[in-house]
Amino acid sequence: MKIRFYNGKILKGTSLEMVKGELHTDGSKITYIGEVPKAGESFDREIDLEGDVIMPGFKNAHTHTAMTFARSLADNYALDDWLHKAIFPIEGKLTEDNIFWFTKLGYLEYLRSGITACFDMYFKPEGVVRAVKETGFRHVFCGSVNDFGGIDVLEEEYEKYNDVDPLISYRLGFHAEYTTSQDIMRRISDIAHKYEAPVFAHISETKAENEGCRQRYNMTPAKLFDSLGLYDFGGGGFHCVWFSDEDRKIYKEKGLYAVFNACSNLKLASGIAPVPAFIKDGINIAIGTDGAGSNNSLNMFREMYLDTVLSNVVNEDPLAVKPETILSAAVTGGARCMGLDECDCLEVGKTADIIRIDMKDPNMQPDNNFRRNLVYSGDPGNVKMTMINGNILYEDGKYLTYDAQEVYRVTNEMMGELIG
Amino acid sequence: MKIRFYNGKILKGTSLEMVKGELHTDGSKITYIGEVPKAGESFDREIDLEGDVIMPGFKNAHTHTAMTFARSLADNYALDDWLHKAIFPIEGKLTEDNIFWFTKLGYLEYLRSGITACFDMYFKPEGVVRAVKETGFRHVFCGSVNDFGGIDVLEEEYEKYNDVDPLISYRLGFHAEYTTSQDIMRRISDIAHKYEAPVFAHISETKAENEGCRQRYNMTPAKLFDSLGLYDFGGGGFHCVWFSDEDRKIYKEKGLYAVFNACSNLKLASGIAPVPAFIKDGINIAIGTDGAGSNNSLNMFREMYLDTVLSNVVNEDPLAVKPETILSAAVTGGARCMGLDECDCLEVGKTADIIRIDMKDPNMQPDNNFRRNLVYSGDPGNVKMTMINGNILYEDGKYLTYDAQEVYRVTNEMMGELIG
Repeated sequence: MKIRFYNGKILKGTSLEMVKGELHTDGSKITYIGEVPKAGESFDREIDLEGDVIMPGFKNAHTHTAMTFARSLADNYALDDWLHKAIFPIEGKLTEDNIFWFTKLGYLEYLRSGITACFDMYFKPEGVVRAVKETGFRHVFCGSVNDFGGIDVLEEEYEKYNDVDPLISYRLGFHAEYTTSQDIMRRISDIAHKYEAPVFAHISETKAENEGCRQRYNMTPAKLFDSLGLYDFGGGGFHCVWFSDEDRKIYKEKGLYAVFNACSNLKLASGIAPVPAFIKDGINIAIGTDGAGSNNSLNMFREMYLDTVLSNVVNEDPLAVKPETILSAAVTGGARCMGLDECDCLEVGKTADIIRIDMKDPNMQPDNNFRRNLVYSGDPGNVKMTMINGNILYEDGKYLTYDAQEVYRVTNEMMGELIG
Repeated sequence: MKIRFYNGKILKGTSLEMVKGELHTDGSKITYIGEVPKAGESFDREIDLEGDVIMPGFKNAHTHTAMTFARSLADNYALDDWLHKAIFPIEGKLTEDNIFWFTKLGYLEYLRSGITACFDMYFKPEGVVRAVKETGFRHVFCGSVNDFGGIDVLEEEYEKYNDVDPLISYRLGFHAEYTTSQDIMRRISDIAHKYEAPVFAHISETKAENEGCRQRYNMTPAKLFDSLGLYDFGGGGFHCVWFSDEDRKIYKEKGLYAVFNACSNLKLASGIAPVPAFIKDGINIAIGTDGAGSNNSLNMFREMYLDTVLSNVVNEDPLAVKPETILSAAVTGGARCMGLDECDCLEVGKTADIIRIDMKDPNMQPDNNFRRNLVYSGDPGNVKMTMINGNILYEDGKYLTYDAQEVYRVTNEMMGELIG
């Protein structure tokens, strides 16, 4: 399939450089970006952008996709109660088929929000593999080891899911310090060293988590993980709300990724990550939605907006975070965090994970500054098209590879069984 | 025009009661709500809701509509610099025709976000009247008196714009304590007493504003306004970020409305309003977007979300604010604040200011709890239809009463002239 996008603007990604002109894809790859048509080319489809902007898709660098089941189900609990009273009892019942359907519901929401890949920590991965094969979504698994399971299959999963489908990859990971014994963390570190692979986990999400870790180990989670060799081949952490100067120093020196989840942290009253400090220190940053249970939406626009403006009010400084920095984190930072360097920007030879932003929506006008309009004013309704691996999965509000209505019908039926 | 909505759910408003069935309008009024069709009725149009929800439109209880010109134009200034360096120089150039076009741009964004009325503080009202007459939007003027003008025409405007068009009304107002002399405030109070009318103004938006007021008058703005008799016939304040216990007591005793503008306060680093304290005290609350210069979007979903979750993190309490309370403020509270009691809910005899929420968007699924999905997960893309005064102005992404493309073309041309 060869597709030509023309008569638009192209936000290339890494540098946030904007060029006028056209972009061509052939199969999964970008084959041309230029101001003028390329002579002698024929295409399977030519799309008139009518002045709209195409740009790299957003990368959701931390989520629990199948937790769409938990949306608005048990709001207004603090993290600990929320997990133990509301979520764990249902999770105990989830079947592979539940995961298959609730993951597909999450993908619908990702596509609508311009998200072209997710870094997903959950369980029963075979349900996810079925979902990817049916939908064409790009999925990066993050290992979800904790004291209740996962360590015995981590290596097997690592090998299997890095070789199951071009749209699927797998990175080592565990839930968090407070759910994972030192013995298990050491075993994960051994596997990381064997494969020279990065490791990811929830980290310093709540003040209580840090306090517990200090009581158990007399150090912060970041210091503990580093001391166990978990970060020797890179990786990073999700949330990073209660990070110390020393924690950031470790992240900077090891080239680790701090993945922010502002909405989830607000709703669960966990805190506000010190985003400006990470940026000032030159630490790699990326952005995630967390799961729909704690967010409750899988909306990268809202995350970008909050990662920009929340620090303004915390620091009493309206210049605290530049929206361009956050936009870059949502696109390029996320891709590199997830090992998707081939999807980190729009350049010839890169993979065609592309979204189209509708400039005919009033919140994108006047066109004083596209990047700032996107971060400060954008919402999922502005996404007119989402392409993954050269295939258009979402266009003009329609889902092209699977039936959204069927997903709603089945997942609502499943809710009756799960909470009944 | 008689319209029948059927096969859906109706969120009635005030009580947030949800009923299944149908709703009929005749002209500007709601004529029937019931579970079953009404025998013998004929309609000009019958709309199958296909399970979607209709509900009262959101009321934007504080905004500067024509400031769409300032979107992403001069971000990352603090309030004082932002006004003086970026905004005032352009405002000095704005013509009535500029106001007409930039107001129409704002209305497009309101319609897309399910907003059916705005409480708008700006100037050159004749440009707005032209915009209302062309578009069919519902507009409530708020007087914008300050030391630079407005007091000499306030009474004339009050009489004129309460009698110019059924979609337009006018409430007394002034900019703020720090821009308005005591003498002028006394003259406004006299007018309020003459008409027995409520008075509105920006209040306690920044810490610096409160400090300045204390230096000048040795009291808070709320106490000052009350002491001048400005609140003797009701009214309220916009922002209310730095309110004391005593300020809230005045608002409670006088039945005043506190209008929150969370996004603007974050972006300009003004602070976070103590929403739970207002709710606990039983004070009337409403929600506004403020202008596009400081927000930057006119998105009531984002406001509702933040008015709910920001207080969670401030208070370290995930139960701090119930989303249902905020939803009610965005619909019913706003209507009553603006004097639009006839639009405050969906009941027979009320005015037909109605929006339709698309339940076929994935962020509204599974349908565990509609109200919470709306506040925690909703975005403007979920608004499928916006009806004002019985007329459908926006449906399926199309604007039915005026040409959005022309608005974009003209406003972008105007930007070239204004900043050139």
